[in-house]
Amino acid sequence: MVDPLPEANPRRPAGRRKGDSGSKDAVLDAARDLFAELGFEGASMRAIAARAGVDPALIRHFFGDKDGLFVATMENRTQIPDRIAAALAGPPDSLGERAANTYLGLWEDPETQPILLSLVRSAMTSDKAAQLLVEAIAGRVYGASVSDAGELAKIRGMALAGSHLFGLAVARHIFHIPVLDEMTHDELVALVAPVIQQYLTHLE
Amino acid sequence: MVDPLPEANPRRPAGRRKGDSGSKDAVLDAARDLFAELGFEGASMRAIAARAGVDPALIRHFFGDKDGLFVATMENRTQIPDRIAAALAGPPDSLGERAANTYLGLWEDPETQPILLSLVRSAMTSDKAAQLLVEAIAGRVYGASVSDAGELAKIRGMALAGSHLFGLAVARHIFHIPVLDEMTHDELVALVAPVIQQYLTHLE
Repeated sequence: MVDPLPEANPRRPAGRRKGDSGSKDAVLDAARDLFAELGFEGASMRAIAARAGVDPALIRHFFGDKDGLFVATMENRTQIPDRIAAALAGPPDSLGERAANTYLGLWEDPETQPILLSLVRSAMTSDKAAQLLVEAIAGRVYGASVSDAGELAKIRGMALAGSHLFGLAVARHIFHIPVLDEMTHDELVALVAPVIQQYLTHLE
Repeated sequence: MVDPLPEANPRRPAGRRKGDSGSKDAVLDAARDLFAELGFEGASMRAIAARAGVDPALIRHFFGDKDGLFVATMENRTQIPDRIAAALAGPPDSLGERAANTYLGLWEDPETQPILLSLVRSAMTSDKAAQLLVEAIAGRVYGASVSDAGELAKIRGMALAGSHLFGLAVARHIFHIPVLDEMTHDELVALVAPVIQQYLTHLE
């Protein structure tokens, strides 16, 4: 068998240093961990660089400032805005089921759950972090699914659906409310999908 | 005019030291502030006593251990479990409206909002704090409104309604999602009451 990814990868863009993606991953891991441990305000770029074993200048080169790094931990590692936008883009009849399944699924996934925890804890203790998250998600999600951004009822419906699913995920995965903890993912999706559908399609 | 509360208050129970209620208030204020600043694990009984200007032994005398103090900051200052139980006890037709109005009202009230913030931030960062909150609320709320505690559908409905309202309050008051932030309390209650009603009465 031929190695599908030979060492001299012809698709690597010119000008990127070998090892960049390893350093990026190390920075994103360190950012996720330190935002979770110390919150958005408490985690300094210096501390994140030290944890990742890189120079702070490299973080600025990759992600700009701390705001950019925070948004990148969400976008690069969970693709939350993209996945939600994709779920909202399909046929309208199963919109509620797709939205609930996609969002709650991100909290079930052992890859994405620690990142969601880190983001939520940061946003609970920092107005700036909350604002960055809201803008990153709203910009992507509204843009993809509301043709006329002035349609207040649709945006309200999305905000109600989103906050409902968020509260449910926290109640299940952080507060461990027994009756929610005990349900399977599919049972939970089946229970909330009609309400999410209602908010996303029937709100006036 | 006669002072309605003369210094020698005849209603003061025998055996209580003068100043007890002032010390209790100071301890509950200090607990609320330190749980908010340092989280449940980070706030020590010693630090709370120092902030309140009392001896740690007095806190143990009033509230037992740190668990008891944490639950007391919720119960004594917000009466959340009692108020929610009362809202659930009225006529079934307006159940969703009363539950939404009562719960979201606690987050609007400048007296109770800082305590809710402190409790939620503690519960987001400590499994123990989350467990104490869930037990205190569930014990009081289920006991008052579910005749047969085994009725799984009713308890599920309450957990879904509660987590929906919780997510909405966080999205509005902590994340400041613009479209939710801009609505009046009454508009928001009117939008979610039908869904809360559905969860509390029609879930199968």
